[in-house]
Amino acid sequence: MGQKSKQQDELTIAHIHDAAQRIKGHAVRTPLLEAPLLNERLGARVFVKPEVLQRTGSFKFRGAYTKISRIEPTQRQKGVVAYSSGNHAQGVAAAATLHGIPSTIVMPKDAPEIKIENTRAYGAEVILYDRYTESREEIGARLCDELGAILVPPYDDVDVMSGQGTVGLEIIEDLEEKQQRANKIIVPCGGGGLLSGLSTVFASSSPGTDIWAAEPEHFDDTARSLVAGERVSNAPEARSICDSLSTPTPGDITFPINQRLVTGGVALSERQIADAMVEAFRLFKIVVEPGGAAALAAALYGHVDIAGQTVVVVCSGGNVDPALFSRILEGERVFRG
Amino acid sequence: MGQKSKQQDELTIAHIHDAAQRIKGHAVRTPLLEAPLLNERLGARVFVKPEVLQRTGSFKFRGAYTKISRIEPTQRQKGVVAYSSGNHAQGVAAAATLHGIPSTIVMPKDAPEIKIENTRAYGAEVILYDRYTESREEIGARLCDELGAILVPPYDDVDVMSGQGTVGLEIIEDLEEKQQRANKIIVPCGGGGLLSGLSTVFASSSPGTDIWAAEPEHFDDTARSLVAGERVSNAPEARSICDSLSTPTPGDITFPINQRLVTGGVALSERQIADAMVEAFRLFKIVVEPGGAAALAAALYGHVDIAGQTVVVVCSGGNVDPALFSRILEGERVFRG
Repeated sequence: MGQKSKQQDELTIAHIHDAAQRIKGHAVRTPLLEAPLLNERLGARVFVKPEVLQRTGSFKFRGAYTKISRIEPTQRQKGVVAYSSGNHAQGVAAAATLHGIPSTIVMPKDAPEIKIENTRAYGAEVILYDRYTESREEIGARLCDELGAILVPPYDDVDVMSGQGTVGLEIIEDLEEKQQRANKIIVPCGGGGLLSGLSTVFASSSPGTDIWAAEPEHFDDTARSLVAGERVSNAPEARSICDSLSTPTPGDITFPINQRLVTGGVALSERQIADAMVEAFRLFKIVVEPGGAAALAAALYGHVDIAGQTVVVVCSGGNVDPALFSRILEGERVFRG
Repeated sequence: MGQKSKQQDELTIAHIHDAAQRIKGHAVRTPLLEAPLLNERLGARVFVKPEVLQRTGSFKFRGAYTKISRIEPTQRQKGVVAYSSGNHAQGVAAAATLHGIPSTIVMPKDAPEIKIENTRAYGAEVILYDRYTESREEIGARLCDELGAILVPPYDDVDVMSGQGTVGLEIIEDLEEKQQRANKIIVPCGGGGLLSGLSTVFASSSPGTDIWAAEPEHFDDTARSLVAGERVSNAPEARSICDSLSTPTPGDITFPINQRLVTGGVALSERQIADAMVEAFRLFKIVVEPGGAAALAAALYGHVDIAGQTVVVVCSGGNVDPALFSRILEGERVFRG
């Protein structure tokens, strides 16, 4: 138990290497993409890590699969419970089905239709709630009690964070093959799980690389918390097109890591995020959802100074309804504010 | 010269392995993608090879880079000429720029805007012509004479074909890692360059795999030629949304290879191709142009029997104008016929 409880408490690079072994052959080994036309325009070398190509359409599968694979098999048979705006939901549903166990997922009733549909299709039972009046944590805890199931938290969990960290291992591996070293990594940030995993990898293997968080306007809790030196929350009335990044506050477990390892955070307008989605379509031929495009938007709009540098931008998810995507492609104003 | 002229005459697996070495580090090593939801629906295991992620947005970069790298350096300095509806154009322009040499590309004036723009942006001089009244071959030959440049043909060239064949090497490598063997490969087919390269690889490494060509209605010249046992042409008045597959007849050099190694060909309606583009968006989060989606359409619509089988579908390119893509996503009727 000594080893295990240490792993539970503290995210280490060994934990992330172990996660990489667990997901091998189950997760997609996503490549690094590059567009010379974009490099020329920005005067930088920009690589995109397209986690939209990941199983279930976002990096969340990595953490969910890692977590479930680490649950003791007898316990695992009772199934898992998760709450999620949609990407973690799909990741958990698919990872549970691959392990042959049931999953119950609590989702906001205003989540994108494609995410609710897919979560069901991956084999989960979906329970809808109102994200502005009900507590998903309470609903999740009650379900775990009733079912004897284990909760797979969306970010505040060392097993989940270690799975997300495998994104960082792959980036480092691919950069080395190209004989490149990144000056900066920019990562879309909700609860901070991907950010904490990735920054742990870079602190270990490439400590000279600066790590930046990209968030939507009104949900820049991580950026503001990094400045304040303590966790601050977003306004309860805040709304964003970036459903996957609409978390109320940085995580309990993720924030102390990010506070130690992350350089800073930037906030993007919805117009900038929509433009980044169109650029990803044009230049990289990938479908990126609003929240998944925040880091690319930060690179495009100079929120992070990248001139003359080598930069990796994570496009973290691609689960966007066709109707919204087509309106964004046509340049319609579909945004709040 | 003996070795070289043999390579010029005959496409061999050694030639394709040599191409793989040449493009390494310059071309994107594209992954294989899989969607459990699609597998379940089709009762098959379907892998997508997303060449939309390739440099310049299509597999054409592979052949162009291989060809240019094999031109003797002094000659190469005089530059290259190509004619192309757009994907080969971009591939040649980018490959020429990477070699530090000029390129002149002859393109139909009704090619998608994004392809013309990008070809210029990659560094080529673009010359527009009318594809229904002028001969691109004649214009290309005249330019080569004037400039002392070498022609990079779109498909009927063993160097180009060997570069396209590297797609097949990667598919075999990735299937082996998954301990899978493909029953069938389905490939979008224009002039037959990709098909000939790929079928040469499979004949050598996986001779039990059937190779199928997917073409749009009215441009099913390869399917009909395979049945007829000789090269037949499409009607001069034929038009298709699949600009990248709108070739008049199978290639001189590609067809004898395909005749020997390819199982058959199928023709897809524009509605089926559009539906495949939407499925690629929803399931794989990739942007596929009409011509690039023909093989996926063949798998979706049962033109090739895949029940219970392992199948690889190549999505060959993703250079589609945003306006057209958004209309297709919205299910508007944008097709002829």
